[in-house]
Amino acid sequence: MNMIPIPVISPLNETAMQAARQRQDQLTKPRGSLGKLEQLSIQIAGITGCLNPDLSQKAVIVMAADHGVAASGVSAYPPDVTRQMVNNFLNGGAAINVLSRQAGAQVVVVDIGVSGDLPQHEGLLPCKIAAGTRNILQGPAMTHEQAERAIQTGMRVMEDLANKGVRLVATGEMGIGNTTASAALISVFTGKQPASVTGRGTGLDDNGLRRKIEVIEQAIQVNQPDNADPLDVLAKLGGLEIAGLVGVMLQAAARRVPVVLDGVIAGAAALTACKLAPQVKPYLIAGHQSVEPGHAVLMESLDMEPLLGLDLRLGEGTGAVLAFHLMEAAVKTLNEMATFAEAGVSEEV
Amino acid sequence: MNMIPIPVISPLNETAMQAARQRQDQLTKPRGSLGKLEQLSIQIAGITGCLNPDLSQKAVIVMAADHGVAASGVSAYPPDVTRQMVNNFLNGGAAINVLSRQAGAQVVVVDIGVSGDLPQHEGLLPCKIAAGTRNILQGPAMTHEQAERAIQTGMRVMEDLANKGVRLVATGEMGIGNTTASAALISVFTGKQPASVTGRGTGLDDNGLRRKIEVIEQAIQVNQPDNADPLDVLAKLGGLEIAGLVGVMLQAAARRVPVVLDGVIAGAAALTACKLAPQVKPYLIAGHQSVEPGHAVLMESLDMEPLLGLDLRLGEGTGAVLAFHLMEAAVKTLNEMATFAEAGVSEEV
Repeated sequence: MNMIPIPVISPLNETAMQAARQRQDQLTKPRGSLGKLEQLSIQIAGITGCLNPDLSQKAVIVMAADHGVAASGVSAYPPDVTRQMVNNFLNGGAAINVLSRQAGAQVVVVDIGVSGDLPQHEGLLPCKIAAGTRNILQGPAMTHEQAERAIQTGMRVMEDLANKGVRLVATGEMGIGNTTASAALISVFTGKQPASVTGRGTGLDDNGLRRKIEVIEQAIQVNQPDNADPLDVLAKLGGLEIAGLVGVMLQAAARRVPVVLDGVIAGAAALTACKLAPQVKPYLIAGHQSVEPGHAVLMESLDMEPLLGLDLRLGEGTGAVLAFHLMEAAVKTLNEMATFAEAGVSEEV
Repeated sequence: MNMIPIPVISPLNETAMQAARQRQDQLTKPRGSLGKLEQLSIQIAGITGCLNPDLSQKAVIVMAADHGVAASGVSAYPPDVTRQMVNNFLNGGAAINVLSRQAGAQVVVVDIGVSGDLPQHEGLLPCKIAAGTRNILQGPAMTHEQAERAIQTGMRVMEDLANKGVRLVATGEMGIGNTTASAALISVFTGKQPASVTGRGTGLDDNGLRRKIEVIEQAIQVNQPDNADPLDVLAKLGGLEIAGLVGVMLQAAARRVPVVLDGVIAGAAALTACKLAPQVKPYLIAGHQSVEPGHAVLMESLDMEPLLGLDLRLGEGTGAVLAFHLMEAAVKTLNEMATFAEAGVSEEV
């Protein structure tokens, strides 16, 4: 089986959750009327062990890597766009940069497997494990050892950020072809047919979508992943950035840092992480509902409900960083609202 | 018919919308991949006539008023909670205060019809038209003249804020009993039975809900509102705060200020405003989907799609102020993202 040194992940702090629940019921509002924000405030209390955690230092970790399968016509964009978009991230011109500036979050770009050279840049962590994965139509995307190293890279990146004081993290990614890898993982892990979990990614037409589904069906046939060994599935069908995000999730949970998931790629990583270490799950928050069909399957499989539903299908971490505002709203309402007693407001009759 | 001096409301600026649409398609992302944020950026351009409006000065207008029908057991809370909660707003302890501080928005509380005395306070506009409405089980909630004055009050409040530089506004309200008035308005305006548009409000049990539906059925029977005369419907079944919000919407549209709606009460006001002046509609944005059943009916009737879906049922303007973040995200992504040409990123193949 796998040799990944899974860090120690404790259960959520029940005492803090109970205290948050009790406080919610004393605040000047009908019980439960803040809906998902109340649940979120309780979850954050359980994760951090504290009713009023300081979430001001936050980051989105954008793992970037290429996919050999992109050569097989599964994307509306050419593979070099991965590298080009990383440069766009470093220059501050992508959607994730704009939304992170708005949120006051740091953008940490990790080259975990981009094909081609990238500049030295203070915003880029050079952690290239390979110049992209191999084409899953012809064999495994990665060796087990590469997948393990990618997971460990994600763990190390997260550990460094936690040591620097980051207390809220979003998962981001860039990789032309990575909705194909994600759909393959989701199909194997959930047992659903590729056709029911595969979407148009960046904008395939009907022919492109049919081709993408065939590619995924063939890749599963060619690779025969062992469903009982999550690392084997990840290595054979996944991607370096997906493996990196698995590591981020494991280490964030170990450090009691809430992880806000973006869309279908983060979700595929979350599914993998939960197969490797089920105790990671309560540390994860679904930032938004993606339009990719695999995402709804994922959410059901993980029993998670996304916060936002804005029909996003951009990735990069955009839907997760947008949800930071709701994370903070949940903590602020829990802590800053007056109680019925404090405000002299009558309770329910 | 009505005597309200409806202000001149121009159509959205098509030139600005076209420019926003074109720019969206040049930004470094798959076309349409920012989903509802793209549509929102185009709508805001149309409303303001500008691709990059300065939305930094923003406000939530919280109209507060009492409802005679609250004496008939339609709420889980006693009527005096309206006055108590206004004091809570003035002291900064309510959910709307916390979320407005987070959003950088001003909270403008308007006493348009609270029963009982309120303190002088710089955050409170004293505009009391009556000490609450009359009980709709026994006759009209307001006279036509009161409803008109309440609409004009809302218009005046909005006009003053626009003159002070406010460029983004949310509708808030407080009034024990006001989901009853709202459900009655929605039932009459949409032709749906009261049972299908009435919810639990602040938290009624099954018996309370049945009672509330009966009250609404009887109130419609007693008052026989003239569906062809929106002011008559509003006066007979609505509330002073609902009428005030109608005025806010009309004047905001006249001043080209986007109006973010909160839940079912704001929605009932929006339905009324659109009956009085259909040209107001494109200036309205639905902030969130309330759990009140009447809200979904409203959204369908107005052909609007809410931005957030957080199972909120608190009112005060909370769901609208939470959505300010998305309004700003829409404007920022449109304006701050690099184009494909600027970033040297390849376009779709």
